[in-house]
Amino acid sequence: MTAQTIAQGIGHHFSDPALLRTALTHRSFGTPNNERLEFLGDGILDCVIAAALYHRFPDLPEGDLSRLRANLVRQETLHALALQLDIGNHLHLGEGELKSGGASRPSMLADALEALFGAVYLDAGFDAASEVIIRLYASLLDSLKPGQFQKDAKTRLQEFLQGRKKALPRYRLLETSGAAHLQSFVVACEIDQPAVRTTGTGNSRRIAEQNAAEQALKALNT
Amino acid sequence: MTAQTIAQGIGHHFSDPALLRTALTHRSFGTPNNERLEFLGDGILDCVIAAALYHRFPDLPEGDLSRLRANLVRQETLHALALQLDIGNHLHLGEGELKSGGASRPSMLADALEALFGAVYLDAGFDAASEVIIRLYASLLDSLKPGQFQKDAKTRLQEFLQGRKKALPRYRLLETSGAAHLQSFVVACEIDQPAVRTTGTGNSRRIAEQNAAEQALKALNT
Repeated sequence: MTAQTIAQGIGHHFSDPALLRTALTHRSFGTPNNERLEFLGDGILDCVIAAALYHRFPDLPEGDLSRLRANLVRQETLHALALQLDIGNHLHLGEGELKSGGASRPSMLADALEALFGAVYLDAGFDAASEVIIRLYASLLDSLKPGQFQKDAKTRLQEFLQGRKKALPRYRLLETSGAAHLQSFVVACEIDQPAVRTTGTGNSRRIAEQNAAEQALKALNT
Repeated sequence: MTAQTIAQGIGHHFSDPALLRTALTHRSFGTPNNERLEFLGDGILDCVIAAALYHRFPDLPEGDLSRLRANLVRQETLHALALQLDIGNHLHLGEGELKSGGASRPSMLADALEALFGAVYLDAGFDAASEVIIRLYASLLDSLKPGQFQKDAKTRLQEFLQGRKKALPRYRLLETSGAAHLQSFVVACEIDQPAVRTTGTGNSRRIAEQNAAEQALKALNT
């Protein structure tokens, strides 16, 4: 199991393999690590996804493009892509992080993936980084549908209730379970009028709330 | 006074002059306008500035790079650059915006400059857009000094007081003056212990607060 697997996974041959290693090194392991590369990669990702969406959706207004990009570059999405690439098994972590299961922490994996984008940019330039990103995001980009341009569930629920002069929903954390970095959350969404109570689960409180709001929207037949 | 002046100002000859015109067209004027180009240019700017800072400051940690970038891509900075280029005199605005002085609104000018970056990218690619941005930001980038990597004044003041277990400062809006888009704000920063009261002014409430906090830091001899 070598870092070369990752290079193959993203489809880029590194002229400078040290860049690949740095991208896969967490700061808990020492210096050089991937923090600065992550900063660089984050900017490149924003730009490449913006350009891809701009070209793909020539009629979509700016607000929809922004929401769509936010959805594609957020931690959850990067985490899912990092899992596909099996980045967790190739990370260099300090002892403490290794023992506490840091290699499976979503933020750790998402950061390493962004750092990889930065490393490709330094190794071979913007176009090479852009190709890697577009290839990795290909099926996500292909699966985008007009319905996905809508606002997130909590926002839609809030706007639905406000438009009807009703009180806003309350979100209440019901349960947290699982080990430190692999927690699962259960959240209730409660609406007074009409009386609706739904629950949602997720790996973060935010996701659990969104899922609960999505259920509430269904219950309200919106 | 033609848009060509702007093209010369940013040092890019447009193969497709329609892109230049669109970048300078506000949505109040009609369609096509610069909203989508602004979205695109914003991403390109983020990326180019990230790369420039990464290369210029090989020893700077990620947090400092982020703060520095935030400072360089924020509206105030873009607005100042747009003024240098005299973008306001080349904007296409709807009647209402023209009459209400929209052409001198900081957000309007900053958005148009970002749209110009997006237009150059579409016209000639990433490297061309990168050159335009780096040329425009050259003196700002050259003037960056280690002292500027520090956190903003409000954050530093808060951390200074928290480190001494003191209550946080209060910011109070004292005065607003000027026409709708050219307002001036006066804000007071009040600290209980040690008793310090300073004021700051600025074209936005945020800037006025930062200036008041800066004065407070001086008064506290930090």
